[in-house]
Amino acid sequence: MTDKLTSIQNWLDEQQLDVAYFSDFHSIDYLTGFNSDPIERVLALFVFPEDEPFIFAPALEVEAVKNSGWQHPVYGYQDQENPWALIGEHLHAHTTHTEKWAVEKDQLTLNRASFIQTAVPEAKFIGNLSPLMTEMHLIKTPDEIVKLHKAGLDADRAFEFAFAALQEGVSELQVMAKLEYELKSSGVTGMSFETLVQFGAHAAEPHGDTSNNTLKSGDLALFDLGTIYDGYVSDATRTVAFQSVSDHQRDVYNVVLDAQLTAQNAAKPGMTAGELDGIARDVITKAGYGEYFVHRLGHGIGSSVHESIQIAQGNDLVLQPGMSFSIEPGIYIPGDLGIRIEDSVIVTENGVDPYTHSSKELRIID
Amino acid sequence: MTDKLTSIQNWLDEQQLDVAYFSDFHSIDYLTGFNSDPIERVLALFVFPEDEPFIFAPALEVEAVKNSGWQHPVYGYQDQENPWALIGEHLHAHTTHTEKWAVEKDQLTLNRASFIQTAVPEAKFIGNLSPLMTEMHLIKTPDEIVKLHKAGLDADRAFEFAFAALQEGVSELQVMAKLEYELKSSGVTGMSFETLVQFGAHAAEPHGDTSNNTLKSGDLALFDLGTIYDGYVSDATRTVAFQSVSDHQRDVYNVVLDAQLTAQNAAKPGMTAGELDGIARDVITKAGYGEYFVHRLGHGIGSSVHESIQIAQGNDLVLQPGMSFSIEPGIYIPGDLGIRIEDSVIVTENGVDPYTHSSKELRIID
Repeated sequence: MTDKLTSIQNWLDEQQLDVAYFSDFHSIDYLTGFNSDPIERVLALFVFPEDEPFIFAPALEVEAVKNSGWQHPVYGYQDQENPWALIGEHLHAHTTHTEKWAVEKDQLTLNRASFIQTAVPEAKFIGNLSPLMTEMHLIKTPDEIVKLHKAGLDADRAFEFAFAALQEGVSELQVMAKLEYELKSSGVTGMSFETLVQFGAHAAEPHGDTSNNTLKSGDLALFDLGTIYDGYVSDATRTVAFQSVSDHQRDVYNVVLDAQLTAQNAAKPGMTAGELDGIARDVITKAGYGEYFVHRLGHGIGSSVHESIQIAQGNDLVLQPGMSFSIEPGIYIPGDLGIRIEDSVIVTENGVDPYTHSSKELRIID
Repeated sequence: MTDKLTSIQNWLDEQQLDVAYFSDFHSIDYLTGFNSDPIERVLALFVFPEDEPFIFAPALEVEAVKNSGWQHPVYGYQDQENPWALIGEHLHAHTTHTEKWAVEKDQLTLNRASFIQTAVPEAKFIGNLSPLMTEMHLIKTPDEIVKLHKAGLDADRAFEFAFAALQEGVSELQVMAKLEYELKSSGVTGMSFETLVQFGAHAAEPHGDTSNNTLKSGDLALFDLGTIYDGYVSDATRTVAFQSVSDHQRDVYNVVLDAQLTAQNAAKPGMTAGELDGIARDVITKAGYGEYFVHRLGHGIGSSVHESIQIAQGNDLVLQPGMSFSIEPGIYIPGDLGIRIEDSVIVTENGVDPYTHSSKELRIID
C-alpha cells in the first residue's frame, strides 16, 4: 500500500466511512500512478478502511493498469456490459460494509450518482473527497517540485521557438504549429492546455483562441503556453513586440510588468491569496487600468493546469511552502491590445521560486 | 430567437417546467453558437418557457459572447465574486417562476447542484436536459453534414503527412508533431482529440499514448486522429506497414479490413447499433481473434468526438438517416501488434456515406 492510499484509509477510518469512490482520473493518477482519461467510460478507484483497494476500468485499460505497477485487484468491463451493475457486484463481493460513501462531489454527476444508487441501494453519499484531494494536492513533494521545474524549462524553450517563428504575415495558428512541432520533435510529450497565440487587438480577448489572424509590424504578440513533464505541467505567458513598439504599448507593458514583479517579489508564506492578488491589482489600478484587469491573479498548478488554489480577491487561503501557482496579471483594452505576463512559482520558506525563467523585459523581435 | 432555443422553450412548456439550466459548454455552443470551455469557471445558459433567455459567464468571456452574435442578455461575474449567489439574483430579477428546473444531469456535479440549491432554495431538479440534448445532436442537419465532410478531408490529408514522416528510428511523438505541424500550418484550427501514433507492439494498447517509442523496419504503424472544422470533428484510424510486412501481420490486417468493410457496407437505416457491431464482431470472431477485439465498434461524432451513439453489442438504438458515427474494428495482440481501421460515416437513406476517404488497403511505406 502506498503512503497516499494509506492516508485515504486513515481518513475513512477517522470519518467512520465505509467506501471511498474516486472517479476523477486526475485523482486516480495521483493516488495510484495510473494515468488515463476514460472520457465517457467509467474508471473508478475504490478504497476501504480495512479491505484491499481495487480499480474498476474499461477492459481495454486493464493491461495498462497492471503495467502501471498497480498491485491490487483490477476489474474490467466490456462496452456492452452495464458498468454500474458490475460495480455493485464487485463491491458486494469485496466487502460487507457498503453504506457510508465518500465521493468526489466536485466531479461526480447527478446521473452517475443515481446509477450508483440503483446498483448499491444502501449507499449514502455522506463524505466529500474533493476537499481532501485538494488538500493533498496543495503542498508539492520534493519529487513533484523537480518535475514542475523540468516542465518549466520546456516552457522556456517554447518561447524561444515561438519568437523565432514570428515574421510579417504569419498566422497565429502557424506560430502555434511551429512551436509545438519543435517541442514535440525534441521529446516533449504534450502541451498542458491549448496553446494560445494572439496578435494585436485579438489579444484583448484574454480567453479567446488561436486563429488565422496574421502578424503585422508594430503588433504585440501574446503567447500563453504550457508543457507536460511526467504528469506535471507548466503554464507561462509572455508578450513581445514585433519590429517596433509605440509609447502607449510600452507604457501599458511596463504597468503589467511592474504588477507581475511586485507580486512575485512580495509573495511569501503567511500572506493570503487575496492579499497577493491585491498587490498586483493595486499597481494596475493606480496606473489607471484597473477596469482592464478582468481576471484573478493566478491559479494552482501541479498535475493539471487549474488546481484549486485561487489567487483572487477575497480569498483568505494562507500561502504555505510547497504551494504552486501562477502569477499572471494582464491588461486587455478592447480593440487595442492585450498584454499578460505570467510565471509559475512554488512557495519557499522566504518567498517564491519561479520555475519558468524567460526574460520578462519587453523584447522587440525583428 | 433561434429555432433551437425555441424548441427548448416548447419542451419546457410541454413538460411544465420553469427553468432550463445548461452548463455543458458543448450544449451552449450548439444552442447559441458561443463556443468556449470555461474550465472550472461557471458558464451557464438559462432558457425559460416565456421569458427571454440569458447567458451567465465569466467577465472575461462577456465580450466574446456578444461578438458571437448572442442577441439576449449576458451577465458577467468577476473571479472574486460568488457566481452562484449572482445567478440567484439574476434569476429572481429575471423571472417569477424559478421552482421547476431541468438540468443536464450527465454533466452537473453534486457540488454545483448543491450550490444552486443554496442560491435558489426553491429549485427542484425535476427535468433532465441530457437526453434532450442527445436527441437534438442525434440527427445532423445538412449544414452540419457539410462541416463533417470538410473535417474528414483534413483527416485524409493528415494521414498523408503522417505516412510521409515515417523513417527508420523516428519516434511516435516526432511523427505526431510533424503531421500536426503540417495541418496547423495549412490552417486547420485544431485536433479533435490527442493524436495517437503507435508503432509495433505498442499499438496493442488501444487507448495507450503517443510515446518516444521508435520505428523499425517491419513494424506496423497505427494512426488515430481527427481534426476540427468550424466546430465539427472527424475521427479516423489507419494502420500501415513500414518497409515490409509478415504473413501474420497481413493476415490479421485483412481480418480487420474485412470486418470494417463488411460493417460499413451493411450499415443502413433500420438496423440496430447492436446488429452493426455484431456484423464486424462476427468476422473477427470467426477468424479466431474475437478475444482481441476489446472495444465497441464505434461511437457518435459531431461537434465532439464522443457523442452519445454507441455502436455496441446489445444496443437496440435504431440507425436513422443523419446519424454520424465511427466504424472502427481492431485486433490487439499484447506484445505482438495492434491494428485498427476506422472511418467516420453518416447514415443516408440506403446505407452510409463515409466522410474520411484514405485508402484502407494495406499500404507498405518505404
